[in-house]
Amino acid sequence: MPAAPAQSLRVDVSFHGRDTDESTDLVTVEEPMEIRLGLGTGEETMEQSISVTMRTPGDDLDLAIGFLYTEGVIRSHADIVRVEYSGSPSPDKGLYNVVKVTLADQVRFDAANLVRHFFTSSSCGVCGKASLNAVRIQLPEGERDAFEIAAADLHRLPEALRASQTEFDRTGGLHASACFDAQGRIRRLREDVGRHNALDKLIGSYLEESRPLAGLGVLLSGRASFELIQKAAMTRAAFVAAVGPPSSLAVELAEELGITLVGFLKADTFNVYVAPQRIV
Amino acid sequence: MPAAPAQSLRVDVSFHGRDTDESTDLVTVEEPMEIRLGLGTGEETMEQSISVTMRTPGDDLDLAIGFLYTEGVIRSHADIVRVEYSGSPSPDKGLYNVVKVTLADQVRFDAANLVRHFFTSSSCGVCGKASLNAVRIQLPEGERDAFEIAAADLHRLPEALRASQTEFDRTGGLHASACFDAQGRIRRLREDVGRHNALDKLIGSYLEESRPLAGLGVLLSGRASFELIQKAAMTRAAFVAAVGPPSSLAVELAEELGITLVGFLKADTFNVYVAPQRIV
Repeated sequence: MPAAPAQSLRVDVSFHGRDTDESTDLVTVEEPMEIRLGLGTGEETMEQSISVTMRTPGDDLDLAIGFLYTEGVIRSHADIVRVEYSGSPSPDKGLYNVVKVTLADQVRFDAANLVRHFFTSSSCGVCGKASLNAVRIQLPEGERDAFEIAAADLHRLPEALRASQTEFDRTGGLHASACFDAQGRIRRLREDVGRHNALDKLIGSYLEESRPLAGLGVLLSGRASFELIQKAAMTRAAFVAAVGPPSSLAVELAEELGITLVGFLKADTFNVYVAPQRIV
Repeated sequence: MPAAPAQSLRVDVSFHGRDTDESTDLVTVEEPMEIRLGLGTGEETMEQSISVTMRTPGDDLDLAIGFLYTEGVIRSHADIVRVEYSGSPSPDKGLYNVVKVTLADQVRFDAANLVRHFFTSSSCGVCGKASLNAVRIQLPEGERDAFEIAAADLHRLPEALRASQTEFDRTGGLHASACFDAQGRIRRLREDVGRHNALDKLIGSYLEESRPLAGLGVLLSGRASFELIQKAAMTRAAFVAAVGPPSSLAVELAEELGITLVGFLKADTFNVYVAPQRIV
């Protein structure tokens, strides 16, 4: 497996302030990554490309399996036989941009459904109303995880997130998804140029350890969209806090599923849009 | 045609600061919109769903035709026979969420290509490397528009953008795309919960008037991704300025096409990543 490539790239830049200055600047790396499914075993095997996403290289295998999990293609790590880079690195940059996930025999994979699904979610990785019902059927039934947190602990999260992000992100161009415990400690953080990828990387990183995000809250560095609430809901997460604002459909989905939704989270204030009883 | 729906929605919220306060807050409306193509005339007509995007309602018809233009399905307004809402409004919210675009007979529309294209761009409305070459073939050939602007005029754009946005956006949840002239005046602005939608709405709004964005620069309220540079490049725009940072692939595409790319645009400073000669 190749080493994780840099998340930022140095480029020449003319810096215009009072004076024009030739300098260099770090920019966030954005590269396409294709996810292929390996299906069948023994004599009859086939390979199918199911997605190309623009991502920041790093944690690519987690991104692939997290994506399959939050899209409902797999239910657990047991549905996966193997995850690996496929093909050769790109000749120009030496990056591996194809990840192949070989599924276990028991996984019922309906290509027709997937085609329809991707068709109706072409623009932003989300499902339209038309396919929303189909996706909701896939959402895990039953109660959300038990989770309570003190308001004071919530208030400390944005600063902790910034402190963690600064280590990695000197470009200002990365979205972050993190998870935190009931004491308000950030337990893990993943970053990407795409906010949905950051969350898929986070969830994928937990897939080997029984259930992703069990007993943890989800922290988003930016806005809370429908898509992100839906991805979080594929785990049993009960609590989503965003530094940015939520959208109307994010609020609706959180209401329907009973997920606590916090927005505009800052050191001294936040808004609670759904289920405030988990804040004690 | 229905009136443009509100871009923001009032929801109940518990506001936690020093004291908990039951209040209301405006959130950005996010709703799915499906784009359907009407193909063929006379006896043989067919309808095909090609995309569902999560968008903020408003300027829906512009969004549909702008999307078709920046995806290379249509080349000009002459390729369109009719643009209209289709079906009934949603029973719960009274919103029209389906737009049908009937194409002229001369439009060569290859469903197989489109399937492949959407397949490989499922995650964020962008093209992967695999399909990048195919899309680049569609990019207009020849010179970019002539465009020059003084640095001092560039510096005024972020404040002008904020002033324009504030009129519409009291939620903090909307991305904006605007175009500006060589004197640094904002000529038109469009907003959406999705940054790609905001740019498609802007470009679509110019489709009736010969060539979109002719002789104008493009201003982005956030980050400059590969996808946004590509959409801008479908017009002959020569100048893209972003309030946020660019990604590595955005810089590469701008270099290849000779598009001036400005990032971190502020009142007193900015970075120029590509083609600084257009700043005078």
